[in-house]
Amino acid sequence: MTTAPHPFSRVRIIGTGLLGTSVALGLREQAVEVDLEDSSPSRLRLAEDYGAGESVNDDSPAPICRRGDSAGCHRGRGHRCTDSFSDAVVIDVASVKKNIASEVANGAGRFIPTHPMAGRERGGPTAARVDLFTGRPWVVCDAGSPAGAGVRALVESLGAVVVDMSPEEHDRAVALLSHAPQAISSAVAAELGGADGSWMNLAGQGVRDVTRIAGSDPELWAQILEGNSDFVAERIESISSRLDALATALRDVDNPGSRTTLHDVLQAGKAGVSSLPGKHGSAERYATHIVVIDDRPGQLASLLTDVGELGVNLEDMSLEHSPGAPVGFVELSVAHDSADVLREGLDAKGWRISGDRG
Amino acid sequence: MTTAPHPFSRVRIIGTGLLGTSVALGLREQAVEVDLEDSSPSRLRLAEDYGAGESVNDDSPAPICRRGDSAGCHRGRGHRCTDSFSDAVVIDVASVKKNIASEVANGAGRFIPTHPMAGRERGGPTAARVDLFTGRPWVVCDAGSPAGAGVRALVESLGAVVVDMSPEEHDRAVALLSHAPQAISSAVAAELGGADGSWMNLAGQGVRDVTRIAGSDPELWAQILEGNSDFVAERIESISSRLDALATALRDVDNPGSRTTLHDVLQAGKAGVSSLPGKHGSAERYATHIVVIDDRPGQLASLLTDVGELGVNLEDMSLEHSPGAPVGFVELSVAHDSADVLREGLDAKGWRISGDRG
Repeated sequence: MTTAPHPFSRVRIIGTGLLGTSVALGLREQAVEVDLEDSSPSRLRLAEDYGAGESVNDDSPAPICRRGDSAGCHRGRGHRCTDSFSDAVVIDVASVKKNIASEVANGAGRFIPTHPMAGRERGGPTAARVDLFTGRPWVVCDAGSPAGAGVRALVESLGAVVVDMSPEEHDRAVALLSHAPQAISSAVAAELGGADGSWMNLAGQGVRDVTRIAGSDPELWAQILEGNSDFVAERIESISSRLDALATALRDVDNPGSRTTLHDVLQAGKAGVSSLPGKHGSAERYATHIVVIDDRPGQLASLLTDVGELGVNLEDMSLEHSPGAPVGFVELSVAHDSADVLREGLDAKGWRISGDRG
Repeated sequence: MTTAPHPFSRVRIIGTGLLGTSVALGLREQAVEVDLEDSSPSRLRLAEDYGAGESVNDDSPAPICRRGDSAGCHRGRGHRCTDSFSDAVVIDVASVKKNIASEVANGAGRFIPTHPMAGRERGGPTAARVDLFTGRPWVVCDAGSPAGAGVRALVESLGAVVVDMSPEEHDRAVALLSHAPQAISSAVAAELGGADGSWMNLAGQGVRDVTRIAGSDPELWAQILEGNSDFVAERIESISSRLDALATALRDVDNPGSRTTLHDVLQAGKAGVSSLPGKHGSAERYATHIVVIDDRPGQLASLLTDVGELGVNLEDMSLEHSPGAPVGFVELSVAHDSADVLREGLDAKGWRISGDRG
């Protein structure tokens, strides 16, 4: 991958957890000098052993301040960094941006709030990956300023996709896309606690998916929700109103308006989920053809070679086959304006197209 | 897999969607004669192509009635089946059991309400799998009766785990574990609809998981929720109360009681999610490797050619694009005993493996 040049030849990483160590590994690949600092000596040692950089105990200048994810440790840290490193560009990577941006207003011009939208289920330096940020969004506030331009280049050099937003817009967006869903997942999971244990055997993938993130650290999330309290409360109130409308409709199912309410909420949900990029909603955004293939190795490669020869770029694909069945089904999703080329081309090459969607 | 013997040598499947076709594939492996019936000729044709059985247009006797998942088509269908097939054991596989059990009281002794707790995000015969039910719970009401014992054996022969419950207990349990989570997922996803489209690039795995099932068919789910309205309403009201408590706490974060409320709900959620038994989805059935590819035509074909050369058969695969990124991620799922061959083989061929699951 080609990486944009950035102006930093030396970077200090404060906090050598998953994010800090992953940033460090990426910078080391670029031959940037990396200083590591962490309040935990053992975590610092692990990051050093991992090849993330050299630990430091002094206050030598460094252009990056990596801050913890929890709201509790934000307070005052931005000040400390902009004060300690008087010439350095300072960034933070916490989950909430508006509070910190106003607190570190004295770093004007040198302090750039950011938020990499990347993570893993495991934390700590040993979970770090040089490619953690590859293709992931990374919010950079004030990316148009001189310091911001350097930070943008640094973030892009790590393979991330820069999203330029104000701190307030960031906080509104993550309230919708991360913090409120987290709170709702917890509320649904909390219901499970009082139920008959034998019922739990009926749990399918749906309830597991809805409640998965409720398994996260309650202390960390209490701090994040508090840090973004107003925007999160607004979203939770709105979702709660929808639930109240649903419950009212279900308590009076013989009322013709009830069916309308149910449909409206379910339909709005389907539309909403299709607005997420990636595979969700690909059925609407792309045209999909279903191709029948023999269920043996090589068939899929042969099909995709033919797709490639047609010059068509796949937006999504999935393979369905059942062990023992003589055939499999491949769903090929492409941009709508490529749909005819794909169908006619595959037909001409002898593939059997069994259906389409989209 | 060893399968229990069951008394049915010929089975009629009415409705060749995901469940019906999967049952049919399983029965065909046991050399059971399978008659297929569906109101959609194209769906019926796909199921036939898949090797699920022979389509029929007559009313010859058959021991199984597969009914649609929607409450609307339950009404009268149980009667029709117990009447049409006067000697047959008739089962249904709908998502709500109390209504149908009382409606088909005239089938006494021959009608067995059941509910397989298996499904996929995608429906239709092309999504069917012979192993869809492997290790999954399948509720069988009245499993102790003579007809019920035969149905229990049939369900076990498909690899499912029989759960014996009354229709009412079933409906209470699925309200908690399936229907209310579905409604909540829709309510959260509905929030996404009004948001700035550029925000959607910030969506991570959390909101995708919480809203995934909101992509399901609204018409189908309106019928299911209506069919189980009181038990679902009760659960939604309880969850809504928890959300109201959270919102109130977030509107007044300086109140010491607020922190307690946040912690209590988040902690109860963590405890609740841990009460779910170990996951038994495809993530556990298969090992999954994530391969990074350049996002251009031909890459996927080249990867799959290499997979084919390794002699590894893919059980599932999916393709993920990151917004604006020059790379894509391909998830390759294979049997656990092929996982090492795949990883080492692809590594040797120069592919970049970015992670694994399973």
